[in-house]
Amino acid sequence: MVSMTGENARGPAPPGGPRSATRGIQRGDRRVHTLSETMTVPTDRWAPLAAQLRADSIRATTAVGSGHPTSCLSAADLMAVLLDGHLRADWRKPMRLDDDRLIFSKGHAAPLLYAMAKAAGAISDEELLSLRKLGSRIEGHPAPTVPFVDVATGSLGQGLPAAVGIAIAARLLGRELRCWVLLGDSEMAEGSVYEALELGGHYGLSRIVAIVDMNRLGQRGPTMLQWSGERYAERARAFGWNALVIDGHDQSAIDRAYADAEGSDRPVCIVARTKKGAGVSFLEDKEGWHGKALSKDEAARALAELGNPRTDVVVDTVGRTPGPTASGPREGTYEPPRYEVGSRVSTREAFGDALRALGAERTDVVALDGEVSNSTYLETFGKAHPDRFFEMYIAEQQLVSAAVGMQVLGLVPFASTFAAFFTRAHDQLRMAAVSRARLCLAGSHAGVSIGEDGPSQMGLEDLSTMRALSGSTVLYPSCATTAADLTRQMADRDGISYVRITREKTAVLYGPGERFPIGGSKVLRRSSADSAAVLAAGITLHEALRAHDLLAASGVYVRVVDLYSVKPVDAATVEACARECGGRLVVVEDHWAEGGLADAVSQVFEGRAAPAITHLAVRAMPGSGTPRELLDAAGIGADAIVDVVKRGIATSAQPRIHE
Amino acid sequence: MVSMTGENARGPAPPGGPRSATRGIQRGDRRVHTLSETMTVPTDRWAPLAAQLRADSIRATTAVGSGHPTSCLSAADLMAVLLDGHLRADWRKPMRLDDDRLIFSKGHAAPLLYAMAKAAGAISDEELLSLRKLGSRIEGHPAPTVPFVDVATGSLGQGLPAAVGIAIAARLLGRELRCWVLLGDSEMAEGSVYEALELGGHYGLSRIVAIVDMNRLGQRGPTMLQWSGERYAERARAFGWNALVIDGHDQSAIDRAYADAEGSDRPVCIVARTKKGAGVSFLEDKEGWHGKALSKDEAARALAELGNPRTDVVVDTVGRTPGPTASGPREGTYEPPRYEVGSRVSTREAFGDALRALGAERTDVVALDGEVSNSTYLETFGKAHPDRFFEMYIAEQQLVSAAVGMQVLGLVPFASTFAAFFTRAHDQLRMAAVSRARLCLAGSHAGVSIGEDGPSQMGLEDLSTMRALSGSTVLYPSCATTAADLTRQMADRDGISYVRITREKTAVLYGPGERFPIGGSKVLRRSSADSAAVLAAGITLHEALRAHDLLAASGVYVRVVDLYSVKPVDAATVEACARECGGRLVVVEDHWAEGGLADAVSQVFEGRAAPAITHLAVRAMPGSGTPRELLDAAGIGADAIVDVVKRGIATSAQPRIHE
Repeated sequence: MVSMTGENARGPAPPGGPRSATRGIQRGDRRVHTLSETMTVPTDRWAPLAAQLRADSIRATTAVGSGHPTSCLSAADLMAVLLDGHLRADWRKPMRLDDDRLIFSKGHAAPLLYAMAKAAGAISDEELLSLRKLGSRIEGHPAPTVPFVDVATGSLGQGLPAAVGIAIAARLLGRELRCWVLLGDSEMAEGSVYEALELGGHYGLSRIVAIVDMNRLGQRGPTMLQWSGERYAERARAFGWNALVIDGHDQSAIDRAYADAEGSDRPVCIVARTKKGAGVSFLEDKEGWHGKALSKDEAARALAELGNPRTDVVVDTVGRTPGPTASGPREGTYEPPRYEVGSRVSTREAFGDALRALGAERTDVVALDGEVSNSTYLETFGKAHPDRFFEMYIAEQQLVSAAVGMQVLGLVPFASTFAAFFTRAHDQLRMAAVSRARLCLAGSHAGVSIGEDGPSQMGLEDLSTMRALSGSTVLYPSCATTAADLTRQMADRDGISYVRITREKTAVLYGPGERFPIGGSKVLRRSSADSAAVLAAGITLHEALRAHDLLAASGVYVRVVDLYSVKPVDAATVEACARECGGRLVVVEDHWAEGGLADAVSQVFEGRAAPAITHLAVRAMPGSGTPRELLDAAGIGADAIVDVVKRGIATSAQPRIHE
Repeated sequence: MVSMTGENARGPAPPGGPRSATRGIQRGDRRVHTLSETMTVPTDRWAPLAAQLRADSIRATTAVGSGHPTSCLSAADLMAVLLDGHLRADWRKPMRLDDDRLIFSKGHAAPLLYAMAKAAGAISDEELLSLRKLGSRIEGHPAPTVPFVDVATGSLGQGLPAAVGIAIAARLLGRELRCWVLLGDSEMAEGSVYEALELGGHYGLSRIVAIVDMNRLGQRGPTMLQWSGERYAERARAFGWNALVIDGHDQSAIDRAYADAEGSDRPVCIVARTKKGAGVSFLEDKEGWHGKALSKDEAARALAELGNPRTDVVVDTVGRTPGPTASGPREGTYEPPRYEVGSRVSTREAFGDALRALGAERTDVVALDGEVSNSTYLETFGKAHPDRFFEMYIAEQQLVSAAVGMQVLGLVPFASTFAAFFTRAHDQLRMAAVSRARLCLAGSHAGVSIGEDGPSQMGLEDLSTMRALSGSTVLYPSCATTAADLTRQMADRDGISYVRITREKTAVLYGPGERFPIGGSKVLRRSSADSAAVLAAGITLHEALRAHDLLAASGVYVRVVDLYSVKPVDAATVEACARECGGRLVVVEDHWAEGGLADAVSQVFEGRAAPAITHLAVRAMPGSGTPRELLDAAGIGADAIVDVVKRGIATSAQPRIHE
């Protein structure tokens, strides 16, 4: 067992500058390395630490009987040199804004990360050996269940994109941190990596160092490029990065490469030629070992080959000297946009207005665009606060990952594109939930009501996608006033918040003073003779209101409810509708029949008999047409609502289940 | 109005080889160009056609009042030279296997594609002017509503990845087609484009020609690289492509570039420097015109600037000489894998077994792997049929797009990765539905039951994602026999079929003779005293069976139903359960609470009063642990089922809606 190295264990800063202050391997041969030494460092400086990282990666995975030890061994030298000499962060304490960040983009090498954490004094050997066990903080892949992990990884190709966000945020906040990213070579196949290279190059994010652990072997066999390191380097250079190829087991070469990277005026990609399973003869560069823990006997043999290294080495890491404290995020006042009831304003326009106002109120609000900000009205924010507007171009994966990265440093990112195109980043959204990230998303051009552009541009699955994210909030305003109020509330909401905004101009329904609590709803039409309740949100609420008037003209009354909060949904009001409107609910939505508003309404009745829910939704592939034509063709317009109400929702009176 | 040029309008093939046979501009100045002429061609050869393509793009968009005319104008010269001289396809007839394919990856330039179709005699001027109107075959973005469109585009960065699939299929089938892809420069930001470059380079797909219309301007402003054509070319070269930069308005240069591409032994990327809105002074290289149709007055001015060109030019295109007819796809017999009831076999293993057998039965079945085939058991197919196994590496977007491309040529692609990682290709799946593609997908490692790897690897939203695809089929077998039978059925299913397969070994429940019709279910336990029905699929069915036995031991009886067909769901059986089991349904699934099995069950009761549905699902972010621990921790194990059944689903007897 290693005893923790506390604050007081660190000695005074030696000559050589703060970078190398009090670094080195403690216990017995405690040494201090200065910057100048890195050029002539003895090759055994990192050997004990590297051996320990290997041994601990094996010990932890063998203890639980699963994991990816060989993927750890290939990167052990890279990480030993990083931890002891370059990473400016003290993992024993909560991360500070100026601390360097380390992202294991190859998340399956998590045991190596935890071995580093042990060597940094952040976790005990006992906790290391709790790897992958129920209730342990250290899971099979990195997650922010431990303070030294900022973003969850394990879905490949997402670490470098998150680093882009962190680096942009650091630049905005004037922070000196460096963001180190360990990538596997297999994940260099992911397009998201090239989005990160392109944006990192475009914005000259020189504080990012990508370290590619080129161990040649993927999960099932060799990678496309195997050890053609120069090919990876060429790609990185083609995107504007400095790139070099090194021997990833030559600790001095690694040290020099890191020092070079620290002086670079561009982002840097270090391609490190390594061997999977390096250090253990029966694992080294062998196929068939991916994702396999060693048996106890195999582990004993492996540790013997490693010289049965000591596993109590502790590196006394030091965080970066903090910069001046940032000013608080709330600086101004919120001037809510005001819309006249009855005027026609699109909810996308109101989103832009509210975001501009929010940006004036608080300086922590930033905006990220998928090169459609003139359509989403994110440009309204951009024009008012150009320093906090970030163009991510047509790279939606990077758009979401950058937002995840920016919230790591405490910013409140609003990322926006067409609702349909958030599907491009579904995996990033899924992982953002595992990261417990706070994101605000706005998806425009929802539904068939966009009209002529056709189905490729129509967000018809966004409510489904967003509802199925753990801990998410899903909002769908019907008028500008609502959209503005909800946009502001999102900034204070935990988890992933999504607002669905509409292309078409719609009538303003509520006056400026109205408030729209998340989880609430608005009953817009009610009578004592309501024969059904029409539950709608967004564009279809206006159809419901039209249907109400058409029905009222023939003496039929329906309740009309604005379910602007899709998740959480207003269960009490939905239940009241069922009670008071003859047990007949009509849900109408501009969305596929699966996973949207109707399912949210159904969930209200879980575990008990439910009322009759008639569901009007999009059920066949739409084409082009005018918004009016397409709403009617999909059977979600006012006429369709009138029709189902008039048909009396016949079966609901005599439920077939009681036949 | 142009009169259609029929089969008999083509003259005999002139000297110069089939490539240029009967090509040229008809009417008036009908000419025939031979290969050798392309080096000394008069610069006005393509001028009338290019002018017509520009004029028709403007006319069509102005007629409907929407669309992207300036994005058409930049590419008009590129497409004029392609249509008249290089594209080997006759769009007046159904596409043949050997015909060249043209994909407008920049789908918003659809009017240009339709203008080409008119010039090729495939649509009339009248139909051209129906652009974007309700019921028209020619939608706002290309879709396979017309025979000359193979894959839908409009979500950027998906055309080139589809071409990779087409080119791989063509090579497998021994077809000579070339696949031409028109890309915008904005979409060069999409990571999916780099996945296509990397796979196209890796597999040396020399029949692909990517044409980048580098018009400098995106939707809201300049692109990242603007006119830095050599930067794009460097990137393409870094991925193993031949690349060149040309003036995209120099028709002779375009012609030479295409001829070079036709002789290349590698895939080729032609970066064409163009001006958005080229040919019209008030549009050319001007910001603020993206996605805007010209008013009638503006259109008249534009057409005047273009010299009020004739719009009745017809190019007499010729398809490629067909190769020998392919042998029929069904060649062998299907030897179904057999599993002993009670033995323990994972459904992923059975999927692999069935796919191998299917591959022996029919030669049109191919498999695409996301570099996890040793986990998904796709390798079982790969080992038996290595010529039809395609490694797409860790590039899930390309995995799905390649499958879309391969089915264009009539193959039956099975694409497989972890269920969680299909989220990476959600946009591609969405667009595959717009493409009306026939895809077979298998997602493994579904749910918390994968155990120690943790949430990043757990497919917990796949049922939701796949159910919300238009026209999809979603299957979730509980045992090896079921998995094998469903796998075979998928090959004959229209649209997108998805089978969810499980990592854990589970007991075989059914004997080899059992059949599992899609849309069906199996009642595994029933009695005359069933107090509830437990509806489950996959891993939780085994929990339900265990719960049944535990309950039976204390005298409580429940029906247990295997809902292996999630979409379409077996409505009749679900209804019978509600009628016969006290109106109490318990749905238990290893999936988030949104969008999965319970929502499929709820939909059965649309429009009428529903029974009490108690829903056991994953509702909090899981961590690592053993499969057993995680099922129990999520409250979806046998104990949880016993618990809810015993609690009597109290509220169902007295529904609150009738209070």
